[in-house]
Amino acid sequence: MSHGVIRYSSDTVVAVIDPDYAGKRVRDVLPYLESDAPVVASVDAGLAYHPTSLLVGIAPAGGALPEEFREAIRIGMRAGLEIVSGLHAMLGDDEEFAALAREHDSRIWDLRLPPAAPLFSGAAWDVTARIVLTVGSDAAVGKMTASLELTRAARDRGADAAFVATGQIGIAIAGWGTAIDRVVADFAPGAAEHLVLEGQRRARDLLFLEGQGGINNPAFAPVTLALMYGGAPDALVLVHNVARTVIEDYDVPILSYRALIRTYESLCATVKPAPVVGIALNTRECTDDEAREHIERARAETGLPCDDVVRNGPHALYDAIAPAIVKTSVLHA
Amino acid sequence: MSHGVIRYSSDTVVAVIDPDYAGKRVRDVLPYLESDAPVVASVDAGLAYHPTSLLVGIAPAGGALPEEFREAIRIGMRAGLEIVSGLHAMLGDDEEFAALAREHDSRIWDLRLPPAAPLFSGAAWDVTARIVLTVGSDAAVGKMTASLELTRAARDRGADAAFVATGQIGIAIAGWGTAIDRVVADFAPGAAEHLVLEGQRRARDLLFLEGQGGINNPAFAPVTLALMYGGAPDALVLVHNVARTVIEDYDVPILSYRALIRTYESLCATVKPAPVVGIALNTRECTDDEAREHIERARAETGLPCDDVVRNGPHALYDAIAPAIVKTSVLHA
Repeated sequence: MSHGVIRYSSDTVVAVIDPDYAGKRVRDVLPYLESDAPVVASVDAGLAYHPTSLLVGIAPAGGALPEEFREAIRIGMRAGLEIVSGLHAMLGDDEEFAALAREHDSRIWDLRLPPAAPLFSGAAWDVTARIVLTVGSDAAVGKMTASLELTRAARDRGADAAFVATGQIGIAIAGWGTAIDRVVADFAPGAAEHLVLEGQRRARDLLFLEGQGGINNPAFAPVTLALMYGGAPDALVLVHNVARTVIEDYDVPILSYRALIRTYESLCATVKPAPVVGIALNTRECTDDEAREHIERARAETGLPCDDVVRNGPHALYDAIAPAIVKTSVLHA
Repeated sequence: MSHGVIRYSSDTVVAVIDPDYAGKRVRDVLPYLESDAPVVASVDAGLAYHPTSLLVGIAPAGGALPEEFREAIRIGMRAGLEIVSGLHAMLGDDEEFAALAREHDSRIWDLRLPPAAPLFSGAAWDVTARIVLTVGSDAAVGKMTASLELTRAARDRGADAAFVATGQIGIAIAGWGTAIDRVVADFAPGAAEHLVLEGQRRARDLLFLEGQGGINNPAFAPVTLALMYGGAPDALVLVHNVARTVIEDYDVPILSYRALIRTYESLCATVKPAPVVGIALNTRECTDDEAREHIERARAETGLPCDDVVRNGPHALYDAIAPAIVKTSVLHA
């Protein structure tokens, strides 16, 4: 979570708290984040850099608050910082934190707190902006990053495009959105629909809808499907981390590119057809040669445009898939 | 909802409130329910039959409480009745009802109130009872009824079998279960898993897990998928109402039998394989000849056992599918 916010948020990260790396700068530890923010050992040390918010920068499975974070949050609240959390555990419902917030005029922003959502109505089918959903081989493979990078490329090419956040990290970055995984199951497609309707008010050409989970992740697939139907995509971008061979935390194999494409396309086709128009590979753990090989192999196996949008930038992939996703009549390029 | 409870609940329905049919008996209005309970015009009139509970016998899409039900509930609470509701709107959270419950020693049973659910863990894969999930062409086609009837047939044949309720009507009938559609999306598969673990404690041979929604119902499919993965079925029974041609409330076509079977089986196969072993058709609106024709056609198109378990009783279908779902080593028939 902290990586995503450091790299993509429009807010400035003034300091990162991590005792293991205190004294360094972010770019010394994680060069790809390109941030000069100092790493400090504690919230107290971080206060010297005049923050306005304290971000609980983790996203553990299950979303509980680790006990060791409580004291850091207390210190932040006493300093009057806004506390931003993407956990399932709502800090605003925690009696101690709620009392501290009142006492110190601190604010709690529970990113995952869902708005009241209606049932899916079908209104998403009338959105005129083209909706591109990232779908993955699993959770946490790079769908958010691909959506953010492609949004940037689309804007660079002159399109009126928006990133539509569906998870807590994306919401922290974009400043709006809904954590679909936190919505009551019956209303999850309605919440996704509500997001693309709001997206249409923010960008008239293209909406890059952040995907979640994976279609055969036994825990998270219902959220995936809520976005596939409720978000009413016109096109899909498949995202995979090449280092992943089984579904995270389960003994379930990752599907082949072709099986993934067939599964996603055939499900969408039963409600609103949406082809997979390209593949965004996450090759972070590869050498340049390995990355090139993975990208070539995915292209050969699927016949689709494929690239790593972080390693190589998003413009080449965007240019390759744009004809398939964009009705030029609504584009202002 | 009231139909299901009248037909299947182990509690006795002593009176039904419906001003349109007041003065008749249930069997005069709905012969198939085989109930002699009187139909009365109001809660006041119903009190003469010494009820202990008042059931809000509706299940509207969206699950809000219709305004015209409030006064009936007030009267029931003042009479000290337990109020049973399967709405999304939690009566226990309603300030007026909560106050009335305290004042009149009435109890509110919100059937859909979910327990705290964990993330899916994979423990369901170790359940030794065979799990049979009903999957449908859409919501409200007869999955609960098929599961209840097949449970009855399995018990008649000597199996230690349980019906596992996943929706508010099934819970009202069985007295336990979880409304999966009411669970936060991330935890819906975990809630389904919890149910089959509990089911295993209640029946060692066979669990008939009540399905929900339909795999291409744009609003309810995430709940369907949560049961397919979280419930870890060994076998599927496909349920269809032959009068249905489009998904209820949406302009989305119902899939063919073969497309439904392919879709359900191929998704399950990505996590834990579960074949469709039979088809339960709902032919309630058909003549005998039409019903026979529909059943024959489904058999011919799919090569699977098929029957209407209400019209013809569940034993023939159960006997036909039992070899495919039951490991005889764990059966005590």
